[in-house]
Amino acid sequence: MTVAETDIPSLVQDIAFRARKSSLILANVDSDRKNKAILRLAELIEANVPALQEENQKDLDAGETAGLSSSMLNRLQLNEKRISSMVEGARQVAALPDPVGESLDTYNHPQGFTIEKVRVPIGVIGIIYESRPNVTVDCAILCLKSGNASILRGGKEAFHTNTALAKLVSQALDETGLPADAVQFIPTTDRAALNTLLKLNEQIQCIIPRGGEGLIRFVSENSTIPVIKHYDGICTVFVDKAADIAMAESIVVNAKTQYPSVCNAAENLLVHREVLEFHLPQIARGLAAKGVTLKADPEAAEVLESAGIDCEVATEEDWSTEYLDLTISIKVVDSVEEAMGFINKYGSSHSEAIVTADKDTAEAFLNGVDSSTVYWNVSTRFTDGFEFGLGAEIGISTDRLHARGPMGLRELCSYKYKVVGEGQIRG
Amino acid sequence: MTVAETDIPSLVQDIAFRARKSSLILANVDSDRKNKAILRLAELIEANVPALQEENQKDLDAGETAGLSSSMLNRLQLNEKRISSMVEGARQVAALPDPVGESLDTYNHPQGFTIEKVRVPIGVIGIIYESRPNVTVDCAILCLKSGNASILRGGKEAFHTNTALAKLVSQALDETGLPADAVQFIPTTDRAALNTLLKLNEQIQCIIPRGGEGLIRFVSENSTIPVIKHYDGICTVFVDKAADIAMAESIVVNAKTQYPSVCNAAENLLVHREVLEFHLPQIARGLAAKGVTLKADPEAAEVLESAGIDCEVATEEDWSTEYLDLTISIKVVDSVEEAMGFINKYGSSHSEAIVTADKDTAEAFLNGVDSSTVYWNVSTRFTDGFEFGLGAEIGISTDRLHARGPMGLRELCSYKYKVVGEGQIRG
Repeated sequence: MTVAETDIPSLVQDIAFRARKSSLILANVDSDRKNKAILRLAELIEANVPALQEENQKDLDAGETAGLSSSMLNRLQLNEKRISSMVEGARQVAALPDPVGESLDTYNHPQGFTIEKVRVPIGVIGIIYESRPNVTVDCAILCLKSGNASILRGGKEAFHTNTALAKLVSQALDETGLPADAVQFIPTTDRAALNTLLKLNEQIQCIIPRGGEGLIRFVSENSTIPVIKHYDGICTVFVDKAADIAMAESIVVNAKTQYPSVCNAAENLLVHREVLEFHLPQIARGLAAKGVTLKADPEAAEVLESAGIDCEVATEEDWSTEYLDLTISIKVVDSVEEAMGFINKYGSSHSEAIVTADKDTAEAFLNGVDSSTVYWNVSTRFTDGFEFGLGAEIGISTDRLHARGPMGLRELCSYKYKVVGEGQIRG
Repeated sequence: MTVAETDIPSLVQDIAFRARKSSLILANVDSDRKNKAILRLAELIEANVPALQEENQKDLDAGETAGLSSSMLNRLQLNEKRISSMVEGARQVAALPDPVGESLDTYNHPQGFTIEKVRVPIGVIGIIYESRPNVTVDCAILCLKSGNASILRGGKEAFHTNTALAKLVSQALDETGLPADAVQFIPTTDRAALNTLLKLNEQIQCIIPRGGEGLIRFVSENSTIPVIKHYDGICTVFVDKAADIAMAESIVVNAKTQYPSVCNAAENLLVHREVLEFHLPQIARGLAAKGVTLKADPEAAEVLESAGIDCEVATEEDWSTEYLDLTISIKVVDSVEEAMGFINKYGSSHSEAIVTADKDTAEAFLNGVDSSTVYWNVSTRFTDGFEFGLGAEIGISTDRLHARGPMGLRELCSYKYKVVGEGQIRG
């Protein structure tokens, strides 16, 4: 679909008005109907694999012509594994409890009436994402289940795939009698559409950008609608002087290498000076065996070199670099206080771990590190909605307001107060 | 204190850096020390009433010279009643339970470690306010109690009073051994300071504007830091066909007249057509007896005129006007659905009430009205942190994210996950 440039603001406004209207209906639709729509979508995706892949191929061809990097092309690809994981994800979300209507608190007012705090949807959520087409389905489903209308604005690279997926979403809504406007896909990737969208704070209550730092920054700086940010993770593991050496090696290697391209992978390793000579070589050998490049401060570098382990020299910039790759920065510290100061300065407040047998040191770390998730003797790799028992996640918030850390269905909700009395007035 | 214009950005940056640093300390200060500082501040205010009033007089004199309206001058005034209410408020907050450290949830991971969700402060909160000097003390105390560092930026009209109050806050912090930077007052009202402040999203985690719509709009549109908005209330009472007439009169009169200048006062009255001729005259006489000006749609106006009650004709604009005064708009509706549609269109999602004896109609209203607080047979005037059992409030949020409705100490907090294990790694 091509949209004339001059029509874009009114097109987007119209989408937002209809989303707002449908959100008021959707807020009171029962779980059963929402689940039916989600399960129907799963069926429709399964029944349309060849057609989806055909559309996806158009995007892949265009991407190759445009000279996209291989990692970009990889993200763009909708292969069978990704399709079945989308379908499986949909069925899992349908099986989760509905967060809407849950009673959160009750207060009995001295004048004899009751005040109940009840979970309700946020309203209309705008999802701004880049090249991964599975986001279209994942986010549509999570918003639908939590009773929110959604407006999806995907990246231009995946436009054909997204359009095809969005058509199936509409069909599923239609066939199960839900408002067609409950999930809307913006049929243009013109920047003007995004710029209009980000200012519609009367109709849209929340914006969630999903993608790289550039996108998130653009959205936060230009939106007058509240944004929940999911920045990447600069995560640190601190090996304390009271660390068990085998546990330290195992946790550091896991946090760095088990899945290096995700946000909860470790980027920095801090080692307490008192155990530097003993612990660092063993940990470093574990990392090197997995192909990790080591970037060390001068003192750590000396220890590594004496032990015959290759390393590079770390720069100031490395401490706040998210490699998303098999590289780690290593620094020596004198105390848990110094470790915490380092993390609070250079980290991204995402996930950090301490390895220690000392309870007091661990508690100081858990309290003093200002990150959404803090680990004692556990790998940082567990920061994830599924691992935290949320059943699903729309992302991992790096904000402090509303949702912090893994964000599931409950975090896609707000609340309201219902007050019931018998004519009480304020004196 | 005068600050050269060129120094303002670096002055504000320095304040924010120091606030961030002190917030990391304050997050782990025990309740006892925070309460001591709050109680000491109450004492200091009591001991300095003449000096405070002298500074306040300077602001009042300047305000009069500048031609401020009488309501502005009234807001500016720090009379004895307001001072003792500030002091009493401080003692009440000191007596409240500390929200920090409260365990919100625990999840046992299948691999044998535990994930605990714990309440923690947000971090650094910027309060942007206008002419009421009591905000300086009220907000400083609420932020302190909830473990947040605060940066206060008051309006120029109250600059002398605010500066004097801020000095007492610093003295209280100092005398009780808390970081001096835990509460900082911006020593200039130059707009450049505000513009700098609103972009410091690395140091400041939340902005709360307290004041009129213009201020809130300016702050939301210019801040790259998440903002919690406290817009005013366009609240509606709906008198259903199944309403008890005496209860309807009592609730409407209370909601409109008990304190008309506050956000939870009613501005609109909707009456079901089936009871219009019977109910409206009695309610209108009750309102008129309190001096309320009635603005009615043509049908309601006819009924009022036949009953010999004066009224004006309501315009479209009136439905979304917050009078904050003894004026009410009256409209006839055919059903609860029409009432809900009206409220969701013209209201500000603050507080709305239905008066009815019909349970189904009431439930439709409580579910379908998209406001932070919905009342069945209770006056809208109860939307308030104290009335809701929160013990105190920093305001009434009109946002959906994070806090909605009355915002107390808990709503001034975020949370973090503490994960404790024995070496678990992700497979």
